Amino acid sequence: MVNHRISRFPVPELSDLPQDIRDRIEAVQEKSGFVPNVFVALAHRADEFRAFFAMHDALMDKSDGLSKAEREMVVVATSATNNCLYCVVAHGAILRIRAKNPLIADQLATNPWKADLSDRERTIVDFALLVAGNSASITDDQIAALEEKGLTQAEIWDIGAITAFFASSNRLANLASMRPNDEFYSMAR
Amino acid sequence: MVNHRISRFPVPELSDLPQDIRDRIEAVQEKSGFVPNVFVALAHRADEFRAFFAMHDALMDKSDGLSKAEREMVVVATSATNNCLYCVVAHGAILRIRAKNPLIADQLATNPWKADLSDRERTIVDFALLVAGNSASITDDQIAALEEKGLTQAEIWDIGAITAFFASSNRLANLASMRPNDEFYSMAR
Amino acid sequence: MVNHRISRFPVPELSDLPQDIRDRIEAVQEKSGFVPNVFVALAHRADEFRAFFAMHDALMDKSDGLSKAEREMVVVATSATNNCLYCVVAHGAILRIRAKNPLIADQLATNPWKADLSDRERTIVDFALLVAGNSASITDDQIAALEEKGLTQAEIWDIGAITAFFASSNRLANLASMRPNDEFYSMAR
Amino acid sequence: MVNHRISRFPVPELSDLPQDIRDRIEAVQEKSGFVPNVFVALAHRADEFRAFFAMHDALMDKSDGLSKAEREMVVVATSATNNCLYCVVAHGAILRIRAKNPLIADQLATNPWKADLSDRERTIVDFALLVAGNSASITDDQIAALEEKGLTQAEIWDIGAITAFFASSNRLANLASMRPNDEFYSMAR
Amino acid sequence: MVNHRISRFPVPELSDLPQDIRDRIEAVQEKSGFVPNVFVALAHRADEFRAFFAMHDALMDKSDGLSKAEREMVVVATSATNNCLYCVVAHGAILRIRAKNPLIADQLATNPWKADLSDRERTIVDFALLVAGNSASITDDQIAALEEKGLTQAEIWDIGAITAFFASSNRLANLASMRPNDEFYSMAR
Amino acid sequence: MVNHRISRFPVPELSDLPQDIRDRIEAVQEKSGFVPNVFVALAHRADEFRAFFAMHDALMDKSDGLSKAEREMVVVATSATNNCLYCVVAHGAILRIRAKNPLIADQLATNPWKADLSDRERTIVDFALLVAGNSASITDDQIAALEEKGLTQAEIWDIGAITAFFASSNRLANLASMRPNDEFYSMAR
Repeated sequence: MVNHRISRFPVPELSDLPQDIRDRIEAVQEKSGFVPNVFVALAHRADEFRAFFAMHDALMDKSDGLSKAEREMVVVATSATNNCLYCVVAHGAILRIRAKNPLIADQLATNPWKADLSDRERTIVDFALLVAGNSASITDDQIAALEEKGLTQAEIWDIGAITAFFASSNRLANLASMRPNDEFYSMAR
Repeated sequence: MVNHRISRFPVPELSDLPQDIRDRIEAVQEKSGFVPNVFVALAHRADEFRAFFAMHDALMDKSDGLSKAEREMVVVATSATNNCLYCVVAHGAILRIRAKNPLIADQLATNPWKADLSDRERTIVDFALLVAGNSASITDDQIAALEEKGLTQAEIWDIGAITAFFASSNRLANLASMRPNDEFYSMAR
Repeated sequence: MVNHRISRFPVPELSDLPQDIRDRIEAVQEKSGFVPNVFVALAHRADEFRAFFAMHDALMDKSDGLSKAEREMVVVATSATNNCLYCVVAHGAILRIRAKNPLIADQLATNPWKADLSDRERTIVDFALLVAGNSASITDDQIAALEEKGLTQAEIWDIGAITAFFASSNRLANLASMRPNDEFYSMAR
Repeated sequence: MVNHRISRFPVPELSDLPQDIRDRIEAVQEKSGFVPNVFVALAHRADEFRAFFAMHDALMDKSDGLSKAEREMVVVATSATNNCLYCVVAHGAILRIRAKNPLIADQLATNPWKADLSDRERTIVDFALLVAGNSASITDDQIAALEEKGLTQAEIWDIGAITAFFASSNRLANLASMRPNDEFYSMAR
Repeated sequence: MVNHRISRFPVPELSDLPQDIRDRIEAVQEKSGFVPNVFVALAHRADEFRAFFAMHDALMDKSDGLSKAEREMVVVATSATNNCLYCVVAHGAILRIRAKNPLIADQLATNPWKADLSDRERTIVDFALLVAGNSASITDDQIAALEEKGLTQAEIWDIGAITAFFASSNRLANLASMRPNDEFYSMAR
Repeated sequence: MVNHRISRFPVPELSDLPQDIRDRIEAVQEKSGFVPNVFVALAHRADEFRAFFAMHDALMDKSDGLSKAEREMVVVATSATNNCLYCVVAHGAILRIRAKNPLIADQLATNPWKADLSDRERTIVDFALLVAGNSASITDDQIAALEEKGLTQAEIWDIGAITAFFASSNRLANLASMRPNDEFYSMAR
């Protein structure tokens, strides 16, 4: 029957966690008003938790080159192709906020080819979908074509690295059947 | 650049339409407060419009056997596998209303295997996905297994017929790049 | 073991049907010399029967723009990709008659890229296969390219709408394991 | 435009061929009343021609274990999944003759899961489709299950070897765009 | 023409790197006798480098539960399905060393279903392939079946987390067209 | 548990074989120092053995047009897409010898798009992969493009015919779960 647990794997009590992880979780709770479930679902593995959020922050908490909204577009479009409920719902909310657009997340998640995108955003999302779906076939000519459309080498790396990181996150969340917090569904609509 | 038109194909003025089609459109407008774009996007072909909505009503406007919410679950889950933006967004809204559940549409659209479903709903959605994705391989044994799980023959037909009708609707909406009304995105969340 | 029934679902007696449905069936019997099984396999649902044939007639019984043979080419090629025995065999027969070509149906059903087609027919069939297989990815550029090859907007809609209708018919026929009448196999060879 | 040539590759004159190949071609012409195009399409490579027909005869011209009709069922079902027009049309004709069944070839080519097959034929065709589509995944358990259903080890090899040989023939025929003789389409219907 | 560069993206000089990254690279060079190219290919992004190897070490440098050889089996099998040359060649070498088996890496990379595996290894590799290929469909029943076969919850997480991490690594290496060092190809054969 | 047998099907004693087959096997043993398992795995069917090696020799034992190394590149790249362990390992060894390149076999087997290939080799391998994966879609324009890149018609046939032959060999080897001799793994590295 219907099952509302957060994860298939152990979910520790906050009080049982190492101090640095508690600090991180309490900081996000203060900022967001609730603790996104990914923090508690990964906390049973302290070293993996730290590496995961270190990579997350290195890729998502900056806005030189790709804007923060563009980064979230990559996350939502590629997470949808991997059918990752947690990532689509949670990052869909963040994308709506960052892009100040209540429609864009559902559009990218349902049919990324029909979303309301600028030419630059179209190029970014198309390449992200290629990295997500068939990275083995990427050619030098395809990289050169992105540069001709105005992307820098650093931006191309960012698109690929964000897509790669969420290829991992999507699989972890699917493995754990990680449940998105109810709050995310209605944020910024 | 970003393009907000309703359809790639002609969108007639209401005043240019046959009376029965105008009546239908005005009735839905009165009930919903706006005209869902599918009505105007199909109106350039009067006979096809009439047949389309006759089939729609025959399959969706009844609740013997499958409930109205179950019918909409079939629509959302199968339309998502066809990446149909119009059907997922518009019928997602209707599903939230009919199921009195603000989460279920996003769940079914993103990962139908992880949605909060009862056992009966799980059986219904799984069969709908089979008809949508590989109807040619359906065996007598699979039909018998559905009956063992408590579905009647009429319910099995309904699941298949709704899935089949939206296989058609999804392709039409994608062909036309039909745009969901902004109102649908936030309804009943 | 081998099973020759017409459908997995109820097949009503002609005498039990509403008058308008009986009239339609008797008309086709008079014209064809036999009753194609689709008529009896759908008759257990009167409203769906009426809507189905209303859509069929709106799309298939005209020849402005796409010729009747071109319409049947769309049906046979796309029904084959959906492995729909009923539609390939029955509409294969109709295509042979309409195109006055005993080979074209088997060619389109087996390998649509190797059939004896004119350039215009090639364009039509290729687009139908795109709508059948991946309608979500259709771009404005692809539509424009069809217009450059000489198709009108109305013809493009017809190709898409016929393909969409048979996406539905193929799934219904596969659901019911609908059996083509033996007569169809050898007609017009 | 429409192109009726037999092959994309050289088609030699009968008089230019080595005597053994001429003899083989003249023998088939005498028996069938026409020369199937595969003989002339492969004749430009004498050694490959000889090896090809040696393998063909070793696999197809015997009836211990699998009957000749069962062998042709394997050919038609697997050639259809490879969209090989030549093999489906030519061997479809042979299958109709060998099985004394005018419907079976079109059934197997269009939807092999819905053909009028006995339980034994169903087992044979299902295994052939597995070898054609995903031979890498075949397990010992699957082989053992075939033996439990009554197939001998020699029959299992024959199913696999015929499927393997036509995996090759289908690709050669598609490479050459080999054209089936018109005669095949209507034989034994 | 043939191109032997290490990466499509910048490869910094060792002397230009932060001290902690230089230390890590010099340590691996001392241990292995050469610097695996992944270290220099990721070094242009210091924070991503640190997070990447922190996750790598958390998942790969332990042997409680899954042995080190079993961890490498997961890497090689799943990296092969992603066609990642760097990961298959480099981790193939490590697997040959850890498993003391010169054949196992080529077996897992070419056909993971035919490799010389124990029952436990078979279970591990099969689940890794499921997480790599279709994590969205994993059910509670499938997790329970793994436990019945003797895997602990911690081992199941490890299989999934390693597969997830290499889903990311494979995409990064393919994005960069990262070149495996020649030394890896012949190690431990 | 781990199983090291050569084939799922009968493996006859050398002394029980027809003289011509014994001669062939003894010749290869003298030349190679061991008997490749394919010879003993096919020997239970004398006529098929003869036809198989006749085709093999006609396609692989010549070097006009395609060089012997280029022929083996086709074998390794296409056998890898079919996950054929025997063909990848055995012909990988032969390719390393013929191309005098210890890396090329693993590169082609893991990611054929990233291998160290000349432009001509790139064209050859790309076409082989097309014939292996989707021969039905090959167009006249694609053949003409190969000729523009400098391939002769005879070379195009050779690429296609070798790919076709190994489509067959791969399926036979997978059917039999044919085991590569241990010697092949380390040859010419």
